[in-house]
Amino acid sequence: MEKWYRQPPHQGDIGISTRVRLARNVKQFPFKEKISSSGQIQLNQMVKSALKRMDLGHNKFGFIELQELSELERIALLEQNLVSRTFLTKPENRMLVLSEDHSVSIMVNEEDHIRIQVLRSGMDLEGAYQLCNKIDDILSETLDFAFDDTLGYLTVSPTNLGTGLRASVLLHLPALERIQIIPQLMKTVSRMGLVIRGSYGEETGVIGSAYQIANQVTLGLSEQMEISNLQNIVRQVMESERGARADILNNIEVIDEICRSYGILKYARMITSKEAYAHLSNVRLGVSERILEEVSLETLNQLLNSVGEATLSVRANQHLNARERDLDRARLIRDLI
Amino acid sequence: MEKWYRQPPHQGDIGISTRVRLARNVKQFPFKEKISSSGQIQLNQMVKSALKRMDLGHNKFGFIELQELSELERIALLEQNLVSRTFLTKPENRMLVLSEDHSVSIMVNEEDHIRIQVLRSGMDLEGAYQLCNKIDDILSETLDFAFDDTLGYLTVSPTNLGTGLRASVLLHLPALERIQIIPQLMKTVSRMGLVIRGSYGEETGVIGSAYQIANQVTLGLSEQMEISNLQNIVRQVMESERGARADILNNIEVIDEICRSYGILKYARMITSKEAYAHLSNVRLGVSERILEEVSLETLNQLLNSVGEATLSVRANQHLNARERDLDRARLIRDLI
Repeated sequence: MEKWYRQPPHQGDIGISTRVRLARNVKQFPFKEKISSSGQIQLNQMVKSALKRMDLGHNKFGFIELQELSELERIALLEQNLVSRTFLTKPENRMLVLSEDHSVSIMVNEEDHIRIQVLRSGMDLEGAYQLCNKIDDILSETLDFAFDDTLGYLTVSPTNLGTGLRASVLLHLPALERIQIIPQLMKTVSRMGLVIRGSYGEETGVIGSAYQIANQVTLGLSEQMEISNLQNIVRQVMESERGARADILNNIEVIDEICRSYGILKYARMITSKEAYAHLSNVRLGVSERILEEVSLETLNQLLNSVGEATLSVRANQHLNARERDLDRARLIRDLI
Repeated sequence: MEKWYRQPPHQGDIGISTRVRLARNVKQFPFKEKISSSGQIQLNQMVKSALKRMDLGHNKFGFIELQELSELERIALLEQNLVSRTFLTKPENRMLVLSEDHSVSIMVNEEDHIRIQVLRSGMDLEGAYQLCNKIDDILSETLDFAFDDTLGYLTVSPTNLGTGLRASVLLHLPALERIQIIPQLMKTVSRMGLVIRGSYGEETGVIGSAYQIANQVTLGLSEQMEISNLQNIVRQVMESERGARADILNNIEVIDEICRSYGILKYARMITSKEAYAHLSNVRLGVSERILEEVSLETLNQLLNSVGEATLSVRANQHLNARERDLDRARLIRDLI
């Protein structure tokens, strides 16, 4: 089954991917470290039973005991944004529910008892939220979630209290970045209770002009309101980006850069992840704006999700050193582009 | 008719082109500036008559009054090594005889009365010399060349006295350059009465790892001996280059560089001549060593002879500025590669 990022993206000219996640805790178990091992195992079993009854169409759930994965496989999951870093710190008794296409990942016994995540190709907050909500409904049929009439859903971190919902859209903003108005945009957006941050690794800063816009407020709003607030801002940012693109693409230097990036990706024999992300970003701009016809956005999405360090090693079925990764990464890109 | 540089090159893995030139003066006319205008016109006529009887096969001579060309056309001739800089300083009464394929160019009323030049694709000293010699023979049937029994042919510059022959081979030496033994090679070769210098513009230094090996001594040797001396050294340099290539091509970094250069040339939308020559050099190495199959040496030779500033302007039929040339150059390369 094809992975979620191979699906035709909604508004893929700018939207790279959408993520919606709900944090839930179950009344009958203590929160956080206080839950016993047997409680954790029981919780895993309850989630499994509940989800087995769910109809995902052609898609299917897999149930993965985290401690049965190799170190490398775990890091690859993190690299592909399927689990949190917290989830990996203590693998014991933790379960990951992963749909075959990787669009749904449910961490059980993370910081919160349950974290439901749905990923979508492109900008598709509605679609991602609806599926997340559906899973939430199915689970609450058999699980009694901790809920307070004033506060809403109870979570370990107070920043999640209320809806427990975190929604974000990863946007490709090369033009806004080039005309240097991202810092200003960040200020504006934060005044609206949202946040923009550069994506692909918090340590490494912005890679490939990809920026994540996410909600910050989970208290005092309905899930649907949070989603539609975020959606409104995202749409405005996308419109600004489209305008800025129209300007910068009058510039033959920009076109030249885009086309060279394609040539380099198509022929390089070794490439670092940093360089690859930069060229993939240029090529994505070229494809979105119909300057390059040779490659699809789906393929670019696939590459973004395939050229990470651990993911390459898992694919090669062995631990690769930096040089081997650079060779493999270049080969994979050549093969797909 | 295809230009000489589109011919399959002899030993084209390293040999780019071969040039043989003979300087001759005619007894009945004073040398250099002392020849009168009417003398010059008479000389042009005599050369024209002599050559009209020569059979060049499918090739044909054209007879060009230098002063009838535009400034740009003249510089383009220089750029393509068909005339000397000296020849262009005073266009009056100067005639260029140019074969349709540009392999033969004869300057009449240059510093010397007559300079016969033959260009060949690849390393082909014998072929170039034989044709030069044949033209010399034809001309000497009707023209009485200034000749001294002790000194040989008399020329304006003492450095040409004797045979009046200057032969050179343009070699592509990226591997010897990379392992940094060219300076040492220059010393060795100069002790043998030859010279190596970086080619494509004396002002700009070595471009595209192209080096010219030429004879220096014209006195006291026969033409044939000069040619075979040069040929021996050239063969040894070619062997060294082949050995060095075998070494450096074990290096994936070098392969990567070659392939990236191809990708850049294939997709860039604007490119300076300096950058173009550098990438063309990498690609030539790749093609010679069968790393790249996508392009022929003939096409690379054509590009080397087409991407110069004046040549691009003549081709566009207007004076192009730097930016326009960079665009045109990239387009030409994309079209051919």
